[in-house]
Amino acid sequence: MRVFNFSSGPAKLPEEVLQQASEEMLSWHGRGYSIMETSHRSPEFTAIIEETEQLLRSLLGIPSGYSVLLLQGGAHLQFAMVPLNLLGPKTNADYVLTGIWSEKAAEEARRFCNVNVAADNAASDRTAVPAQAALRLDPAAAYVHYCSNETINGLEFPYVPATGDVPLVADMSSHFLSRPLDVSRYGVIYAGAQKNFGPAGLTLVIVRNDLVGRCSPRWPTMLDYRTYAEAHSMYNTPPTYSVYIANLVLKWLAAQGGVEGIERANAAKAKLLYDAIDASGFYSNRIEKAARSRMNVPFSLADAGLDGAFLQEAGERGLVQLKGHRLVGGMRASIYNAMPLEGVQALVEFMQDFERRHG
Amino acid sequence: MRVFNFSSGPAKLPEEVLQQASEEMLSWHGRGYSIMETSHRSPEFTAIIEETEQLLRSLLGIPSGYSVLLLQGGAHLQFAMVPLNLLGPKTNADYVLTGIWSEKAAEEARRFCNVNVAADNAASDRTAVPAQAALRLDPAAAYVHYCSNETINGLEFPYVPATGDVPLVADMSSHFLSRPLDVSRYGVIYAGAQKNFGPAGLTLVIVRNDLVGRCSPRWPTMLDYRTYAEAHSMYNTPPTYSVYIANLVLKWLAAQGGVEGIERANAAKAKLLYDAIDASGFYSNRIEKAARSRMNVPFSLADAGLDGAFLQEAGERGLVQLKGHRLVGGMRASIYNAMPLEGVQALVEFMQDFERRHG
Repeated sequence: MRVFNFSSGPAKLPEEVLQQASEEMLSWHGRGYSIMETSHRSPEFTAIIEETEQLLRSLLGIPSGYSVLLLQGGAHLQFAMVPLNLLGPKTNADYVLTGIWSEKAAEEARRFCNVNVAADNAASDRTAVPAQAALRLDPAAAYVHYCSNETINGLEFPYVPATGDVPLVADMSSHFLSRPLDVSRYGVIYAGAQKNFGPAGLTLVIVRNDLVGRCSPRWPTMLDYRTYAEAHSMYNTPPTYSVYIANLVLKWLAAQGGVEGIERANAAKAKLLYDAIDASGFYSNRIEKAARSRMNVPFSLADAGLDGAFLQEAGERGLVQLKGHRLVGGMRASIYNAMPLEGVQALVEFMQDFERRHG
Repeated sequence: MRVFNFSSGPAKLPEEVLQQASEEMLSWHGRGYSIMETSHRSPEFTAIIEETEQLLRSLLGIPSGYSVLLLQGGAHLQFAMVPLNLLGPKTNADYVLTGIWSEKAAEEARRFCNVNVAADNAASDRTAVPAQAALRLDPAAAYVHYCSNETINGLEFPYVPATGDVPLVADMSSHFLSRPLDVSRYGVIYAGAQKNFGPAGLTLVIVRNDLVGRCSPRWPTMLDYRTYAEAHSMYNTPPTYSVYIANLVLKWLAAQGGVEGIERANAAKAKLLYDAIDASGFYSNRIEKAARSRMNVPFSLADAGLDGAFLQEAGERGLVQLKGHRLVGGMRASIYNAMPLEGVQALVEFMQDFERRHG
């Protein structure tokens, strides 16, 4: 029996995708071997990786002036690759700090450049997003970095920062593919796959072509966006099985009506859960309403002493991986693309029942 | 129907492993979710990654003074990480050149240090391994690097170079886990997983602890061995599904009698194939006998015009992915751990039959 899995990542994948992967594990398309056992230079895998790029371009309307790169190392490696690739002769970069992930990105960038903190929502205890007017942008910065959805805090930008001629860089790991996106507003978009895209170990980078080729040869070849752009992500062996799963996920997404269709479903799921929290005197979410994440919904119980009982009883009802991040505590329900409405309904019903009995 | 798949990598995996992965894809150990959908911080995955390290330590007899790291980026990223982590204040490193992979490693290292070519088998057209006495080692080198099995050329070192007090570094990507190994002879061993260990996208590093901690903070955090050693490879999200498959592969290997048992099987498979080639006037392998790889067996047909027919007929008999590397041409049969003796027997029978009809 499948359960409803609210893991923040590596996260739930569409059941249809796992079903197909299971069926094809010993013999992909009747070939007699798994795609996991196939040379990355084989026609079979080459077709998969090319189709994956085309699906991404089509689903997100990625302009032709952008490269789509599939690589490894997660968002953590991008925290270094962004400055190494974008600084060029410049020495400064702007960072918007809104939570743990943007702080980590800035911390790593300090190894390579001067970090100008363009905004910091620490005064709001990470519960609000800085307004456009509050961003103290440096016109000489090489780029402006922000994290458009802070997974741990459950904070999502309701707007795209305007940065003039300075390239905008976004860590979109935890809401990439959850809604339409105007790629042309960005210089670089990056995302770890393990939320809405595929298994952990695959990383996506979308980069404007004029920003490719600035990385100095004093850095490793594998950290240069050009290495991946020129070789269509096949400079060395890519994580082939993860690319295959991502390919299946994108086809599933297209069948849901693409990012437009999934956005409607995600908005409905998030509204159901936040409304239930707000209507209750027992559960609470601290984030200002305009900046609440549609993907990650942290919430607290009025009595933290009941956390253990909540997790225990939820688990018995097939509602799992709800424990909040250790830095925030409480609960967190991650309701990514693959979580059906029924999962959120079941969670809300359980929450109301738990409140009646313990509240 | 499963075929015999001779891919050089990503390569054949044990059928039992794929069978279990297929069965557990929708629900791991009855949990109702895939291990692919599980948080890397969950008790389930934590147990898997810890067990994976213990299995490696036990199978290879890794001494306690060594760290076992699981990371991403393939051997290509190690080509940079080795100098960045091992140079310290030194400026020179020794490289033994025996083929395409050791050349690639040296080429990348030239970005970071002076590369002393300790030996180069180009004069033998990459068909022989330099003898110990022929190595021109620099006592002031930070380390000595070699590739102990050259996948493309099919050349395997029959001995471990003695390097005195200078740490020995080996790229073992394509024969790691195929035979016993005296880890204490090495400073660093690294290997991409996609031959004998698991899916592409997982990389193993075994490093002597006194070599951890020398990486300068001017390099990215994710390139420092210490980052992985201190966090037990959980500094950021590891490629969790690939670790899970590797875990199953190691259990399978233990059931084959460990590396001692698999070495006997590998020796028998290689002898069968090389003997058939040598007994024929139609097929040939150029590598000197003492240095022939047990894992990768390149061979040529007397008439290259028959290559297409050979591949076509082999495919019809369920013998696939036999085409040689584009830089070498001809055929290559990679007979890694997961290839059963029956696969090599079927190949030899086909080769003899093909020779009778076309030779």
